[in-house]
Amino acid sequence: MNISIIKIGGNVIDYPEKLDEFLYLFSRFPGKKILVHGGGVLASKFGESMGVMPEMIDGRRITDKDTLDIVTMVYAGLINKQIVANLQKLKQNALGMTGADGNLIQSKKRPVKTIDYGFVGDIKEINTDLLSTLLCEDIIPVVCAITHDKKGQLLNTNADSISSEIAVALSGRHKVNLYYCFNKAGVLIDEKNDDSIVPLINEDIYAELKKEDVIHSGMIPKLDNAFAALNKGVNHVWIGKAENLLLAAKGKVSGTNIEKHRYDLY
Amino acid sequence: MNISIIKIGGNVIDYPEKLDEFLYLFSRFPGKKILVHGGGVLASKFGESMGVMPEMIDGRRITDKDTLDIVTMVYAGLINKQIVANLQKLKQNALGMTGADGNLIQSKKRPVKTIDYGFVGDIKEINTDLLSTLLCEDIIPVVCAITHDKKGQLLNTNADSISSEIAVALSGRHKVNLYYCFNKAGVLIDEKNDDSIVPLINEDIYAELKKEDVIHSGMIPKLDNAFAALNKGVNHVWIGKAENLLLAAKGKVSGTNIEKHRYDLY
Repeated sequence: MNISIIKIGGNVIDYPEKLDEFLYLFSRFPGKKILVHGGGVLASKFGESMGVMPEMIDGRRITDKDTLDIVTMVYAGLINKQIVANLQKLKQNALGMTGADGNLIQSKKRPVKTIDYGFVGDIKEINTDLLSTLLCEDIIPVVCAITHDKKGQLLNTNADSISSEIAVALSGRHKVNLYYCFNKAGVLIDEKNDDSIVPLINEDIYAELKKEDVIHSGMIPKLDNAFAALNKGVNHVWIGKAENLLLAAKGKVSGTNIEKHRYDLY
Repeated sequence: MNISIIKIGGNVIDYPEKLDEFLYLFSRFPGKKILVHGGGVLASKFGESMGVMPEMIDGRRITDKDTLDIVTMVYAGLINKQIVANLQKLKQNALGMTGADGNLIQSKKRPVKTIDYGFVGDIKEINTDLLSTLLCEDIIPVVCAITHDKKGQLLNTNADSISSEIAVALSGRHKVNLYYCFNKAGVLIDEKNDDSIVPLINEDIYAELKKEDVIHSGMIPKLDNAFAALNKGVNHVWIGKAENLLLAAKGKVSGTNIEKHRYDLY
């Protein structure tokens, strides 16, 4: 079957009106689909109200025991269940999950090298049978950024990685498209101009844009991730704004489509 | 199929060692099973640390918007996912759910009469098809005390009621046993003596024990609930201590067995 994996980030989750608008678009998104979300900003806010300050190194959250409890409460509890309840209202049969539920995502606590990230998991295995069962029952999995090590430990896990690992794992038996919704309209020639979208990137164009320094810093891991997914069998990756998701589903240009080679277009 | 619904309360959930011990017993509990839990004490503790004080009227929690967020975080997030991760460690394929997930439990916000309980739901409908699908896949549903109204609103819902409503709904097509784990060894002749268990209660014995004032106050709604479940098709109800759950499963007397009529024993 055709499966779409759609990832939303804090720029959508942290604003109730934006989340509502997005969920409506998501409800109209055709075909079998899986929603993946994090919720870092809200977790930081709740943590602060409980006296647990977020500790970040190079933009990455350090997950100590208290922080793990908070992200578990906020991602798997508050955000996940509000999304599920809102999708149910929209007649979408959503079912919220962490990676522990039904052993959906087994991960491994990140080994301590120079930095101890704490209770952070790197993904080992996706339970594609469970996802297939749910999708066949017309259930929409809503997956939050918590996994487990199958030894009883929950682990905080990057939502971008969850999306791409799920996409790769499912692409063995299905045609999978991956949609990253983020705070920009796509890969931009001019970062400050949402109209300067690069509509299509393949490996040749990517190499060129990096050389010309059009693509740099935070965009590079995102695109590396996208190409890695394509190289492992994912059909198509899209990066853009949540509000353009339906246009993207219809194949209209409004965001950046990432394809392995130019000839994949034909 | 035979299905056991097992409900645990705060006396198990609020103590990590007790919860671990219980989950081990639960993992050895034979056959198809569903776990139902609340978590009120932990929710009150977290609420207080965030400056949200629990408001109770006649021992019942009033669920305002902030309290709803907290119980959603604590029940559906922290407690539910820790239970699921621990069961996964014990090779039990647990999947945590609220009533919103897969539209498992639809409820209705309790109408305001003399008391406004806030975002509290009374159960309308159980999605037995979803439970059957999960149980057939050897998945163990772990259900927390949150439901939804299918209009986008999450609702705080009594875990005892969730257990008995699930039991009743499934009893249409299955043989269902209901186990209430609580802080006493069963129905006691002498409240302070755990050895004074009444091993069996049927409607005749219940009437007599109420007349003699052996059963009174908090125990009456619990038993009324149990008899209501039996009258609606549930096979058998047990009330006792979590640590005696396996004995109960083996039919050994260690707790109170509740049966409709005396002749049900034969």
